[in-house]
Amino acid sequence: MTFARDDLGLRSETIRRANLSAIVRQLHGDGPLSRSELVARTGLTRSAIRGHLGELVAGGAVSERRAAPLGTPGRPSPLVCPEPESAVVLALDIEVDSLAAAIIGLGGDVLEHIRVDRPRGHSSLAAIVDDLAVLAETVRSRRTPRLPEVGIGVAVVGVVRRADGLVSTAPNLGWVDEPLGDRIQAVFGTDVPVSVANEADLGALAEARRGVAIGVDHLLYVSGEVGVGGGLIVDGQPFTGVAGYGGEIGHILVRPDGLTCRCGAVGCWETEIGAVSLLRRAGRSPRGGRADVDALLDDAEAGVPIAVAALEETGRWLGRGLAGLVNVLNPRLVVFGGLFGRIHPFVASLVDAELDRSTLAAPRRLVRVVAGSLGAEAPLRGAAELAFEPLLADPALWMPLRGAGVMSRSAKLALRRVVA
Amino acid sequence: MTFARDDLGLRSETIRRANLSAIVRQLHGDGPLSRSELVARTGLTRSAIRGHLGELVAGGAVSERRAAPLGTPGRPSPLVCPEPESAVVLALDIEVDSLAAAIIGLGGDVLEHIRVDRPRGHSSLAAIVDDLAVLAETVRSRRTPRLPEVGIGVAVVGVVRRADGLVSTAPNLGWVDEPLGDRIQAVFGTDVPVSVANEADLGALAEARRGVAIGVDHLLYVSGEVGVGGGLIVDGQPFTGVAGYGGEIGHILVRPDGLTCRCGAVGCWETEIGAVSLLRRAGRSPRGGRADVDALLDDAEAGVPIAVAALEETGRWLGRGLAGLVNVLNPRLVVFGGLFGRIHPFVASLVDAELDRSTLAAPRRLVRVVAGSLGAEAPLRGAAELAFEPLLADPALWMPLRGAGVMSRSAKLALRRVVA
Repeated sequence: MTFARDDLGLRSETIRRANLSAIVRQLHGDGPLSRSELVARTGLTRSAIRGHLGELVAGGAVSERRAAPLGTPGRPSPLVCPEPESAVVLALDIEVDSLAAAIIGLGGDVLEHIRVDRPRGHSSLAAIVDDLAVLAETVRSRRTPRLPEVGIGVAVVGVVRRADGLVSTAPNLGWVDEPLGDRIQAVFGTDVPVSVANEADLGALAEARRGVAIGVDHLLYVSGEVGVGGGLIVDGQPFTGVAGYGGEIGHILVRPDGLTCRCGAVGCWETEIGAVSLLRRAGRSPRGGRADVDALLDDAEAGVPIAVAALEETGRWLGRGLAGLVNVLNPRLVVFGGLFGRIHPFVASLVDAELDRSTLAAPRRLVRVVAGSLGAEAPLRGAAELAFEPLLADPALWMPLRGAGVMSRSAKLALRRVVA
Repeated sequence: MTFARDDLGLRSETIRRANLSAIVRQLHGDGPLSRSELVARTGLTRSAIRGHLGELVAGGAVSERRAAPLGTPGRPSPLVCPEPESAVVLALDIEVDSLAAAIIGLGGDVLEHIRVDRPRGHSSLAAIVDDLAVLAETVRSRRTPRLPEVGIGVAVVGVVRRADGLVSTAPNLGWVDEPLGDRIQAVFGTDVPVSVANEADLGALAEARRGVAIGVDHLLYVSGEVGVGGGLIVDGQPFTGVAGYGGEIGHILVRPDGLTCRCGAVGCWETEIGAVSLLRRAGRSPRGGRADVDALLDDAEAGVPIAVAALEETGRWLGRGLAGLVNVLNPRLVVFGGLFGRIHPFVASLVDAELDRSTLAAPRRLVRVVAGSLGAEAPLRGAAELAFEPLLADPALWMPLRGAGVMSRSAKLALRRVVA
């Protein structure tokens, strides 16, 4: 059966690209799959899969390998595998007390990784980007020849405008309206797209794609150290609000007669659940860092009353604010990251009790609260997912890369249009 | 140019249905359009549009009419118009103090409408559904022969499981786990799909499709009388959470030492901004209804101090809770419906001042707060949009209807599968 283009109202090149995208997205997200699994998951015909795989194998993006025999009769079907080194991204992470860089391959494997401490407090945009450039060169130079980089993803503890990577505010860095995306593009001298997002948004993305929340369509990720951030996955897609500023769950009012927040408002949730209040409640310096929190957790483990009481009070406030968010957002799963992932074992039952008390029955029945499985690396892993997005949306643009060793100029321009 | 099915990996029937859906959805949403506008908005080719319009005109769903001359040279292009009476839905609305029914045609016109008062307080599911059946017969019987009904949409002041229209809780009606959708299906003896949703969710949908928020992709609708509800539009799509329970913004904590809410928790936003607290602050019976609120607004207009003070205090709490929601959701527009739409002129500046004080700078800059334009009928109009959804998703299923005067059994079953 054949039919004319006009019968369809669609163009064949559009369809080819959409099909390639569906296939590469599956392989990147779900790892090695048989052709039958690809047919089932993409909804494409077997012969369409065959044709497109030929193209992808020739382009070096995937390979087909014989699976290990499973002890069942007959030959196992070959598995289609993404080739991690065929296209990599550079992932960067700017946290309050550390910086990190990683090279992550198609399929999501971390190929190279480095994380270094940074002193708390304010730093200029220039200083941080220079430090990141050194880290990037460190991980890149571990591979000769250099791996083909198709994008840069950046996680940052700040409120980010997705369109251009402007950091509207990052109180812990002392930033207001800093052009992080542009600065990285300039200092790194790169032509590949640079995508920037809030670290909690990316933590949510990573836990949903690679962590404890795989397959969870409605997810609320709650993370923090000093600041408190949130990431939302709605219907399987990251929710960012109209300009990427969404998810600032640390700044909901929970206590009108409470403390003044760094944001200027009074009684924000962050003032009751962040690391500062936890340390203060435990009689420690509120300026303490990760090591002080670890010491506090050791104390609590040993039954030191003030440490136990501090965690309990923090846990109750965690539950109280969370109850309202569960009513508003009706998530299937709440994932605790950062500080909250670490204190989860101590506060889980108190959080659950507050949810029982203060959440409407219907959303309460559906939600569970768990600690994330990617720990402190969740935002970095999410930054990689973000950086792969232009490639996954249109792999055809990137396939010329393999032939020439570098991307054609037109492919680069097209890629940047996809991102813009 | 022709190509084989296998080159595409898509089936022609799938494409035909998707194209019909795109066309009918545009005409239903945006009203009469020229063929050129349809080409631009659907992305289909001109000849694909021509073929599909032929099918739709033959099916009676659309007609082409010559537009009025605009004083410019040349003939005006004909306009493709949805035919309102070719397919209608029955919209029902269960509010705390009223019930309503309407017949709404393809394209969104309200063809028939009735609203009656109901006494506040608890009513059984059976009693309310029986009352709705009387209202439905009233509006249906105004047209002979009866218009072809393709769906029933129901708005209700309760927390609703979208999948089957179970009302998990509706405190103002005294309902817990009442199968509203099934009951309507049974009592109305209908084969068309019955879709049920929370009235604030539907108010949001209606304001986004037909009201003040047309074209707004990120919308927070805040409405209420006694209870407070919210509706979210995210990326142009209704946000309902994992099971339709999302948007319960009345039950975020804003005052831990405040009043106990009807939901059992302490200090919910609803306890500070609902009609009960407004009336109490104005020295009126907190059990008063719509007329008492109107009298209070008259007093405020006349400058009666206690009425002005009551509205001011309510306005401040409205702004405080809203600030946190704006931080979490980063909407472009906040639309006040119900009680809040009516008090908006009195509280707008106070709400804005609280947002200035308590919202992060970036989301604050992007958001405006306005009163809705559909008033009390927003949920009913939204119920109609919900009821049209199966038809818009696959108009091909419904086109046999016109020939036979009734839908074929297979089309009905298929429609119900689409909804399930």
